[in-house]
Amino acid sequence: MAYDSKESSSSELRHDWLSDRWVIIAPQRSARPDDFADYRPRIAVESRNCPFCQGHESATPPSIAVYASQESKSTDEHQWQVRVVPNKFPAVNGVASLRWHPVGEMLASQTFSDPIQTKDDERAAESVNERFDLYGRRRVSGAHEVIIESPQHLQTITQLNALGVELVFRAYRDRLRYWSTCSDIAYAVLFKNVGSEAGATLVHAHSQLIATSMTPTDVKRNVERMELFHQTQNECLFCRMIREEISEKARIVAASRHFLAFCPFASRFPSQVTIVPKMHSSAYADLPDERLGELGKLMHQVVQSIEFNYPDTSYNYIIHSAPTGITNAAVFHWRIEVFPRLTKVAGFEWGSECYINPLPPEAAALKLRSCLG
Amino acid sequence: MAYDSKESSSSELRHDWLSDRWVIIAPQRSARPDDFADYRPRIAVESRNCPFCQGHESATPPSIAVYASQESKSTDEHQWQVRVVPNKFPAVNGVASLRWHPVGEMLASQTFSDPIQTKDDERAAESVNERFDLYGRRRVSGAHEVIIESPQHLQTITQLNALGVELVFRAYRDRLRYWSTCSDIAYAVLFKNVGSEAGATLVHAHSQLIATSMTPTDVKRNVERMELFHQTQNECLFCRMIREEISEKARIVAASRHFLAFCPFASRFPSQVTIVPKMHSSAYADLPDERLGELGKLMHQVVQSIEFNYPDTSYNYIIHSAPTGITNAAVFHWRIEVFPRLTKVAGFEWGSECYINPLPPEAAALKLRSCLG
Repeated sequence: MAYDSKESSSSELRHDWLSDRWVIIAPQRSARPDDFADYRPRIAVESRNCPFCQGHESATPPSIAVYASQESKSTDEHQWQVRVVPNKFPAVNGVASLRWHPVGEMLASQTFSDPIQTKDDERAAESVNERFDLYGRRRVSGAHEVIIESPQHLQTITQLNALGVELVFRAYRDRLRYWSTCSDIAYAVLFKNVGSEAGATLVHAHSQLIATSMTPTDVKRNVERMELFHQTQNECLFCRMIREEISEKARIVAASRHFLAFCPFASRFPSQVTIVPKMHSSAYADLPDERLGELGKLMHQVVQSIEFNYPDTSYNYIIHSAPTGITNAAVFHWRIEVFPRLTKVAGFEWGSECYINPLPPEAAALKLRSCLG
Repeated sequence: MAYDSKESSSSELRHDWLSDRWVIIAPQRSARPDDFADYRPRIAVESRNCPFCQGHESATPPSIAVYASQESKSTDEHQWQVRVVPNKFPAVNGVASLRWHPVGEMLASQTFSDPIQTKDDERAAESVNERFDLYGRRRVSGAHEVIIESPQHLQTITQLNALGVELVFRAYRDRLRYWSTCSDIAYAVLFKNVGSEAGATLVHAHSQLIATSMTPTDVKRNVERMELFHQTQNECLFCRMIREEISEKARIVAASRHFLAFCPFASRFPSQVTIVPKMHSSAYADLPDERLGELGKLMHQVVQSIEFNYPDTSYNYIIHSAPTGITNAAVFHWRIEVFPRLTKVAGFEWGSECYINPLPPEAAALKLRSCLG
């Protein structure tokens, strides 16, 4: 291939209003040779020792919540469809998860030996910066849960039926709702890692929730940006974005009555998709029962399109919901972000936090939309 | 394995002063099972079609600079030891790289067809936020170069002799020096991606330089943090950190007369290493000739220790040097950051930018130090 400066001249910077960062959209980068192309990890299918499979319940800590399929309203814990358990190797812990009855009612409290850190401790620790302590340390408390999404050794939510997907999105809602009422928790995030590249260590379909006594710095910064937008524009950043996307059409992937899926204008990653409620809502925890099936169906479509376009590719999704202590719910709009791990985060990105995305979001949306009929 | 809440209770938050972010140090996370453990990509060794090997010079754009080994002071371009070429698939372009003579003297100017964006364009674009343009776009100009570090198909700088490593660190210095004098460039970053996980697409030992007309948002934020530290503490953040590290000892990996290598207190990644000049210096470009061999030797040790402890693991290193337009060189201290890619960036990190590191930096330093004799 000859060096073609004309072809290579189409890089564009795009500004992400939320993070106040620029992304480099560089379509010419996708033509690079790749010595590693054959080394994409495939997903292992071994189920014999899977701690998440039905019958292996004793391999995990006792469940916090179990959901049976509607067909069998059994209270037998072994007849579960979705099961929530504490992570055996938690990133944070110390705050008790209340245990739920098979059909959603609370059963008993599972307590931990750690003393629970209060928000006052957090506020005291916040002043670390003001005192110029170069090496600030602080205890962190919280909880780390795993949502096991199928009793069978399935590897993706697209293998579930509509009811199965709905139950998964219900479990997310219930767990986020639980943590939003817990006074020791400032922030909870629900996320899914699928495949090795996305940080998964087990293949059985599952998601995770981490709830912490502190709000991460970048979540605070995002809230500040949404506040700034609201103050100066007198509307919610995402409500405005939804209007723009519906008007422009080019970045829309799929839509249902109450939800919209689109590739964001300043996508950090190729084929990144944002899913939002069309009407303003700050917390995923507030999602009413009757919308769970609709959201599940849309998410199923988005994930299926990613799996169809990029077979065996790892991906993540994350539910960004308002931190517990948010004072003005009008500024924060919850969203789900999905991104296949097609590019690697390399030295340039770590050195600048400026991401290079070889696939313009308009081209990504066209690609994802085209297989959805 | 039984669920052991005692073992799992040792997470700690550590504050990184520079980025103003907290890192979760969670040693209990390293005991997790891993379905993907056998799927770590190995490095391919095929050299037949490698565009960076000697004899394949026509597979890359013409060289910008070539360095011969001291033994052969030949001006024959084919007798090179280190060779700098424009990236064939640049993330940014439009600013001309001046071509250098084999022994460092400028030869001829290679121009591109793109009009060069001026800093005034950048300043105009900076006001995007104030106007609340939701979807800010802007042209980006700059350059993207590749530093080919050996004429043979070697895969790491630890396979080079002392002189070879010195030439590599000289080439970095010269290229960063060149871009620091270019009025259209605001920021240049030098980085190395080794292995697929680190974002490399070719295995032949090489590094890259990206120079851009804009300073990335996070680089600006880091400068602001260093300024804040300097204003309130009346000294440079890293000068203070170096004193603390030398006094504490526990996180030191290696040291030479003028340089220090240590695992930073709030390491985002396991076995992350920072290399700094002990005396204050804001720009790697200012490194005098007589320190290049000393730095190369220390970097060789650090990389060798990482390769010994984590065979076949991908890693990055990045030279963080002051942006061109910095007004007060006393606030910025240049540094090199090295990090093996042992953990994956998963949903939690993308959702919070709060990193979970399973290896305390004190344990990492002990591990890395122990094989250095």
